[in-house]
Amino acid sequence: MKSFDIDVLKFNERGLIPVITQDYQDNAVLMLAYMNRESLEKTIETGRAWYFSRSRQKLWQKGETSGHFQNIKSIYYDCDADALLLKVEQVGGISCHTGKRSCFFREIGVDS
Amino acid sequence: MKSFDIDVLKFNERGLIPVITQDYQDNAVLMLAYMNRESLEKTIETGRAWYFSRSRQKLWQKGETSGHFQNIKSIYYDCDADALLLKVEQVGGISCHTGKRSCFFREIGVDS
Repeated sequence: MKSFDIDVLKFNERGLIPVITQDYQDNAVLMLAYMNRESLEKTIETGRAWYFSRSRQKLWQKGETSGHFQNIKSIYYDCDADALLLKVEQVGGISCHTGKRSCFFREIGVDS
Repeated sequence: MKSFDIDVLKFNERGLIPVITQDYQDNAVLMLAYMNRESLEKTIETGRAWYFSRSRQKLWQKGETSGHFQNIKSIYYDCDADALLLKVEQVGGISCHTGKRSCFFREIGVDS
């Protein structure tokens, strides 16, 4: 493993950082979730996505109940070090709790 | 324009919602930023991306100083209505203030 110093990252006042999760094959954006330090450590260690649930205030492994695990292909952080991007293999092809592939399935119209 | 009720969206305690911006052609994730209600309204009205700067506490049109405007192709919101996804044409091919195409240019190593 390349050693990575998590202290480089800027977690917010709640100890969280937003995470964009993208399909590594076609780059579809699957979901936006949050990690705390511990969930990022577990993600790096296990090679599977772990997030922090703001509503339940606990760590959760994506797929722990649905079986729709996310196998990590790569992890990036942004220029401000306050956002993460995961490229994953989405087991079962479904990331959303609604049964859709992506959580972003509703469109807003634009004027122009 | 399809009418869209912005009140459907859940802005956070600071009145902001996170926004993933993606290249409409190859789905590359370019940046993560934030919008308040007014910036989303301006984005919908003008067809160009407007964000809210947390550091400067003001509205900004992406590209207003660099010329790297983002022309909106489509806007999506997620299952929880607390995150947005923009598909854009990135003018100049550069979205990051560092001069890179994407803000997510640094990789974190993974164990497995």
